Amino acid sequence: MTNDERIALYDRMAGELYVAVISDILDSLGFRHQVMEANIKPVDPAERRVLVGRAHTVLMAPIYELTEEPYTVQIAAIDALQPGDVGVEATGGITGNAFWGELFSNAVLGRGGRGIVIDGYHRDTRKILELGFPVFSTGARPYDLAGRAQAIDFGCPVICGGVLVNPGDVIFAEVDGIAVVPGVVVEETVRLAFEKVAKEDRARDELRAGALLSEVWNRYRVL
Amino acid sequence: MTNDERIALYDRMAGELYVAVISDILDSLGFRHQVMEANIKPVDPAERRVLVGRAHTVLMAPIYELTEEPYTVQIAAIDALQPGDVGVEATGGITGNAFWGELFSNAVLGRGGRGIVIDGYHRDTRKILELGFPVFSTGARPYDLAGRAQAIDFGCPVICGGVLVNPGDVIFAEVDGIAVVPGVVVEETVRLAFEKVAKEDRARDELRAGALLSEVWNRYRVL
Amino acid sequence: MTNDERIALYDRMAGELYVAVISDILDSLGFRHQVMEANIKPVDPAERRVLVGRAHTVLMAPIYELTEEPYTVQIAAIDALQPGDVGVEATGGITGNAFWGELFSNAVLGRGGRGIVIDGYHRDTRKILELGFPVFSTGARPYDLAGRAQAIDFGCPVICGGVLVNPGDVIFAEVDGIAVVPGVVVEETVRLAFEKVAKEDRARDELRAGALLSEVWNRYRVL
Amino acid sequence: MTNDERIALYDRMAGELYVAVISDILDSLGFRHQVMEANIKPVDPAERRVLVGRAHTVLMAPIYELTEEPYTVQIAAIDALQPGDVGVEATGGITGNAFWGELFSNAVLGRGGRGIVIDGYHRDTRKILELGFPVFSTGARPYDLAGRAQAIDFGCPVICGGVLVNPGDVIFAEVDGIAVVPGVVVEETVRLAFEKVAKEDRARDELRAGALLSEVWNRYRVL
Amino acid sequence: MTNDERIALYDRMAGELYVAVISDILDSLGFRHQVMEANIKPVDPAERRVLVGRAHTVLMAPIYELTEEPYTVQIAAIDALQPGDVGVEATGGITGNAFWGELFSNAVLGRGGRGIVIDGYHRDTRKILELGFPVFSTGARPYDLAGRAQAIDFGCPVICGGVLVNPGDVIFAEVDGIAVVPGVVVEETVRLAFEKVAKEDRARDELRAGALLSEVWNRYRVL
Amino acid sequence: MTNDERIALYDRMAGELYVAVISDILDSLGFRHQVMEANIKPVDPAERRVLVGRAHTVLMAPIYELTEEPYTVQIAAIDALQPGDVGVEATGGITGNAFWGELFSNAVLGRGGRGIVIDGYHRDTRKILELGFPVFSTGARPYDLAGRAQAIDFGCPVICGGVLVNPGDVIFAEVDGIAVVPGVVVEETVRLAFEKVAKEDRARDELRAGALLSEVWNRYRVL
Repeated sequence: MTNDERIALYDRMAGELYVAVISDILDSLGFRHQVMEANIKPVDPAERRVLVGRAHTVLMAPIYELTEEPYTVQIAAIDALQPGDVGVEATGGITGNAFWGELFSNAVLGRGGRGIVIDGYHRDTRKILELGFPVFSTGARPYDLAGRAQAIDFGCPVICGGVLVNPGDVIFAEVDGIAVVPGVVVEETVRLAFEKVAKEDRARDELRAGALLSEVWNRYRVL
Repeated sequence: MTNDERIALYDRMAGELYVAVISDILDSLGFRHQVMEANIKPVDPAERRVLVGRAHTVLMAPIYELTEEPYTVQIAAIDALQPGDVGVEATGGITGNAFWGELFSNAVLGRGGRGIVIDGYHRDTRKILELGFPVFSTGARPYDLAGRAQAIDFGCPVICGGVLVNPGDVIFAEVDGIAVVPGVVVEETVRLAFEKVAKEDRARDELRAGALLSEVWNRYRVL
Repeated sequence: MTNDERIALYDRMAGELYVAVISDILDSLGFRHQVMEANIKPVDPAERRVLVGRAHTVLMAPIYELTEEPYTVQIAAIDALQPGDVGVEATGGITGNAFWGELFSNAVLGRGGRGIVIDGYHRDTRKILELGFPVFSTGARPYDLAGRAQAIDFGCPVICGGVLVNPGDVIFAEVDGIAVVPGVVVEETVRLAFEKVAKEDRARDELRAGALLSEVWNRYRVL
Repeated sequence: MTNDERIALYDRMAGELYVAVISDILDSLGFRHQVMEANIKPVDPAERRVLVGRAHTVLMAPIYELTEEPYTVQIAAIDALQPGDVGVEATGGITGNAFWGELFSNAVLGRGGRGIVIDGYHRDTRKILELGFPVFSTGARPYDLAGRAQAIDFGCPVICGGVLVNPGDVIFAEVDGIAVVPGVVVEETVRLAFEKVAKEDRARDELRAGALLSEVWNRYRVL
Repeated sequence: MTNDERIALYDRMAGELYVAVISDILDSLGFRHQVMEANIKPVDPAERRVLVGRAHTVLMAPIYELTEEPYTVQIAAIDALQPGDVGVEATGGITGNAFWGELFSNAVLGRGGRGIVIDGYHRDTRKILELGFPVFSTGARPYDLAGRAQAIDFGCPVICGGVLVNPGDVIFAEVDGIAVVPGVVVEETVRLAFEKVAKEDRARDELRAGALLSEVWNRYRVL
Repeated sequence: MTNDERIALYDRMAGELYVAVISDILDSLGFRHQVMEANIKPVDPAERRVLVGRAHTVLMAPIYELTEEPYTVQIAAIDALQPGDVGVEATGGITGNAFWGELFSNAVLGRGGRGIVIDGYHRDTRKILELGFPVFSTGARPYDLAGRAQAIDFGCPVICGGVLVNPGDVIFAEVDGIAVVPGVVVEETVRLAFEKVAKEDRARDELRAGALLSEVWNRYRVL
């Protein structure tokens, strides 16, 4: 697949699929631990868009002193982002500061990045909302990371929101939650997901027409 | 009361009362533990509607293997729902999966159900919001319940959100929280609640006109 | 500064500053623990306004019996509020009831108060939203405080949301979080905050024009 | 009952009963919420003694400034203790300091008190163990309460460890946990508890002799 | 392997191995999630014995009403225990009651069971300690399970302490924690564990003789 | 002070002082946040010894892949320990593995270290207890840190158990908790602590002789 084809696929996934369907398909393929914890949500509670892209990972660690260059690795990580990428910032559970803000968001847009997922706090909510840049985080906290946390690596495996994310995995994030599709099963997952969505459409029609749930289940075996 | 009268009463309660007033009246009658925990919220954070109806309970339990028929009791529970009912799904604190989704919501609508309260996760947020079906839950998580949880009984007493709910109790759910009105005091609670709302209207008018809170409290004894 | 000048300053801060900038400036002055915990949020999740004012503190404690006059100290505290004040209710971690509601909000408006910050629950969400009164809390719970909690002092130092608040400190609250600016550094903080905002505007412009983050950081040293 | 008879009864209860039996009897009488949370434990993890006595309650609240007389109400509460009493300190969930220490323990011994139950931290573990004074707490933390917490009342109803304790209730505390026997059912509870212990002795003998659990359950209906 | 050989192997493992070594070997075989959560501990904090045996699983669920026969499945599960078995009670996170007590312990001893692991509370601490029966739990709470929880299945896969346990897996439990050795790798794990213990003995000798840690690590590659 | 004098002072502090007294003196000097969180306890729950020494800090971070040399910085940190030092391992809240074990303990003994404080898990409880080496941790968990966590720095400021620890601060750890005495006030703290202990001895004598607590407080002003 060319880069453009990949990005076109992400757009189609974002437009037509649901994370619940992605999760069901991953379940059926034996990948039953691919959804991040439920406290990572879009910055905008009214967000209805879906963020899909290739994981570009960053690994965070604590630090307890002020240094001359507190952002070096984070800056390098952002400048290395490729078009079609979704930044995945793994905080290791640090809650004392924000890991993301508005200027970083502008920088990612400049690199062609599609959005950011953090298992920690962001800041600059109002400016991020104005910008319309997709950020999924555990909430907002104004503290800067300088003297509180630091990026120590990027492009490495990380655990974010409880799920192992390898560079190259595909992130599917929406208001319901965030699934990590392992690189090796992206194609199969997408194909099966489109099939399941079609079946659910037929089940829904019958339920709306008044059918009992037991009948619909027996007919379509989807819920 | 006929079924239609009951439903008309629920509609009037939903239109004119507040859960804070319901809770105050229950307090005054000696029922001081009738409000569910604060983490059960409407799926739509901008929800202003009130959900009122008769509790139709479902009891959940863990399961750790995939079975042929993972939804049997849940389906039977939904198909047994009566017009005017609110489904109350008691999860026992299971957070590993969603207990509710869009197809279930369509099925409840088909049975005349008014909405759903779960002390656990739902999924299919976007479709539930389109449908406009009232779901109160602890948030969204995409994992299906198959191989993770199971309904084991319905129509039985449950503890949901920390409150004992007996079938036939009345659920009053809004953005502020969810009260469970025990069957035996529904009429008394409703009557006293309408009286309190009237008093609060007069207190509010005086406060807006600049009265000191101490004066208003001494006059109306409501806050 | 006259009272009117003070209020005009609060309005200008609310209109042009951000809590992240306030926090960064406080950090740079050596005040690194001035932001409340992240679970205190505006009642309206779509709130974009900023609440700025002088802290008027109230200290809460538990109580486990019903008394004749459950609101005495709370009422006195509200009636003592001055124009330009923000009420700061310190609950000590009590989660069993609401500490704030709609009638209290009307009373504060009548005294010229600007808003309320509580490290506990409020109630009457729907009426507070109609009123447009700024309340920051940890969420909604309908239980009244009578027989559950009591105000025991006001105008005293409190810890609210993990931060020591002295009467006279300035509260800066928005959707990102809530900073407490110690009385002695208000002027310096405000001056430096306006300077930082200007620098960030220039950095943002360059990022949007496609500059690498490393270049922008080296040029402006703000993030 | 004379005071001496009461104390003799407490001694006999401590010597021959178990909190699990007390809890089962309270369950059977319809009092199903009489056991404190599981994190209140004897200071000595190897403690095998049982503490029984009449509840003498103290109510705590936060405070955030240093005062001239930080211990006034606490001291009055201890000096008011009667022989046969167990102090019950209700902290309201404050975890920032210790509520109990060695000098207080010596003072209670001087008044004829039998021990102390706190739903918060103690300090002076080593000296309390030397003294052999029964203290049940949530653990040890060295911080003094001055400027952190204060007693605000005593001899009033409190919630300690999640259970409502009225003055005059009987506390039964051991390594398994702490039951609160409401004043009105003390006699009935004690009588039934002694009966249940006798039945369990017979069931145990048969199980040790190799009987199946199903047989023993059918014969004695105790577990 | 005969049953006696199996039990002899469990005894040898209990006498000579450590759960840290078992965990390291499982790590090296790619099984990196086989240790239960850290809050499951021996009832006796001074316990130095190791419990090893074949997992006999029980699945728990909530219940909120009193029934005639609250213990039926639990009793059947215990009566079905085989010599060499370790009971594994999966509570699904229920903390409102004890799942184990002294009479159950006597019953297990009568069936040749070696001990019990519960991710929930036990009761009857004093009697269990007298009996010397190995129980690993999250602590003690006196409430009986009747009307609070129920066994609903046994001999099925369960998640206990966060780890999937299949019937036939081997449990290795000691004061450090509890490992679950999947049935298919028991032999390999045991063999490699004995080898690692021998290497550690040599490393320890050199460290005690004053060697630098870096030298010892380079020589033995064990820590 | 020579090194030997320093170590002699630590020994005298360990023999005659209490962490509650150290904390009270630090409070009185304006250092009110010097005691670590209450969940860091001696490995041996029956430990009565006190650990005093100079802080030698290590900073931990997450890692999610297996590397050739997972222990490099940790080994260097241990080999750099000086006689009289107490290792302080700051985990940043990582709970997925142990940070300390028996071989590390032997290595520290070989360097003249006095003990270890970790705000995370240890392993090898049984061997550490045999060795009698003082380890304070949040409990035991068998998982090795390889592929789960890594030391990234040592000899730097860290936050351990919620307290900022600078190299050269003095650690005072016992069963009650762990105080960090900032380098600049060590001498003053020690002098005042010995004075307070003497006063408490006199107060205790009077309480044991039956004096009221109010009298003793008025006389000595210590509690």
